[in-house]
Amino acid sequence: MKDETLDLRVNLANRLADLSGNIIKQYFRQSNLESETKITEVSSMVTIADRLAENAMVDLIKKECPEDGIIREEGENINSKNGYAWVLDPIDGTSSFVKGLPIFGTLIGLVDLNNNLPLLGCVNQPILQERWLGITGKPSLFNNKIINNPYKNNHDYPLAEVCLTSTTPLMFITPRQQAIASRLQKVCRRTAFGGDCYNYVSLAMGWTAMPMIVLESDLKYYDFCALIPIIEGVGGIITDWAGNALNGNSTEVLAASNQNLHQQALKVILSQG
Amino acid sequence: MKDETLDLRVNLANRLADLSGNIIKQYFRQSNLESETKITEVSSMVTIADRLAENAMVDLIKKECPEDGIIREEGENINSKNGYAWVLDPIDGTSSFVKGLPIFGTLIGLVDLNNNLPLLGCVNQPILQERWLGITGKPSLFNNKIINNPYKNNHDYPLAEVCLTSTTPLMFITPRQQAIASRLQKVCRRTAFGGDCYNYVSLAMGWTAMPMIVLESDLKYYDFCALIPIIEGVGGIITDWAGNALNGNSTEVLAASNQNLHQQALKVILSQG
Repeated sequence: MKDETLDLRVNLANRLADLSGNIIKQYFRQSNLESETKITEVSSMVTIADRLAENAMVDLIKKECPEDGIIREEGENINSKNGYAWVLDPIDGTSSFVKGLPIFGTLIGLVDLNNNLPLLGCVNQPILQERWLGITGKPSLFNNKIINNPYKNNHDYPLAEVCLTSTTPLMFITPRQQAIASRLQKVCRRTAFGGDCYNYVSLAMGWTAMPMIVLESDLKYYDFCALIPIIEGVGGIITDWAGNALNGNSTEVLAASNQNLHQQALKVILSQG
Repeated sequence: MKDETLDLRVNLANRLADLSGNIIKQYFRQSNLESETKITEVSSMVTIADRLAENAMVDLIKKECPEDGIIREEGENINSKNGYAWVLDPIDGTSSFVKGLPIFGTLIGLVDLNNNLPLLGCVNQPILQERWLGITGKPSLFNNKIINNPYKNNHDYPLAEVCLTSTTPLMFITPRQQAIASRLQKVCRRTAFGGDCYNYVSLAMGWTAMPMIVLESDLKYYDFCALIPIIEGVGGIITDWAGNALNGNSTEVLAASNQNLHQQALKVILSQG
């Protein structure tokens, strides 16, 4: 993608984040009884916020870049006419959103469909006003400042000194997945569940007192596409459980603060029993 | 407890929250490499923040109310000389703290040991600057404003329209606990894991688009003592899984937005298979 074409889309990604954030904010911490929106029996606050935010983003993309495709969580996908597609998840972390906890995020990715490479990724948290932006080949940004991942070049950490995170133990469904998660949990210093997209941005920021590994499965493309450029733009590694690049069919994700830790984790994943 | 004796302790609870919050803030989102504190191999950021915050609270209680006892998470308990004891958990939600997610809380309770009744409870979140205060017999406060639980008198909700929350499915340890959790998960509208103390304050605030039930087990006294006056002061109900008042030996907690929902949940818990 040419520089000016990408720049236009980086600008668009920021506007998509603003737009969706303004919608989502109206539905956060609103009980049914206080809300002006009538919540029907089959619907819920999170579903409404999800759909309205996604539809607004889709409309803006159609207007600004009508040839771009859209891969989305809620509605039907839109085919690309130019080889590029947006990958949208309006509310990643619905359990947190539902309970009024501000650790959900809007995930906005852009992918080159010819080679499956993500071109840019944005995570937006409208309540805490936290925004991460990754552009392939460039340093990632947190609220417009370059992120310094403190563990990027620090290869002294064994897995026994690492924090392992997964959103929930229930995401490990098959006996193989459960066995792998269990093996990694045993060797890592501590396992912290919960988090959704916040696990990945925490890894990117180096917020933890030790480097981090995220092990997840049962994911969809829109759950991780936007995270790839952010993690890679801080010197972190994000692949599938075999160490291969992620694509639209991947469901298992492994992310690490640096290359060395990623290799150590892969070794545990690929070992037998 | 006399009014002026309680007033003094309400004031003290607020100062304990300020004090612990100032300490905890210094350790939040600080990587090992950036911190001035040397983290040893056997220790970690959360442990240091936990201990320093707890010790500071203990010192202030000893100074202001030297006859009060202290039941605490980290250090040794201190016997009460007057029948009252503070129940402290400096960081409830360590998994969130470790990852830099601001949904942990400092729990500060005061209990009358003669009858096991909590007199006051405070939940403090120093990063988001959110504070809840419950005083037995009075309406609970959020940042000094009376909380309006929108579901307090709304008895139209069946369990099928309710949000069930538990911090993690791993807290249900025995086959009986797992069977009960599974039965309740099946009848409720949705189950949202994660949250720690934020599940209870979310219930108190009515942040959800539907009323809430919290079902937890494997808890210690300091995990829930401070929450009791807060939940009761918004018209919510919090008991053990048999519907009895909680005390220092309880480990299983059931909280609900109102009496009707609490009874419906109890019926599911006490039913067979």
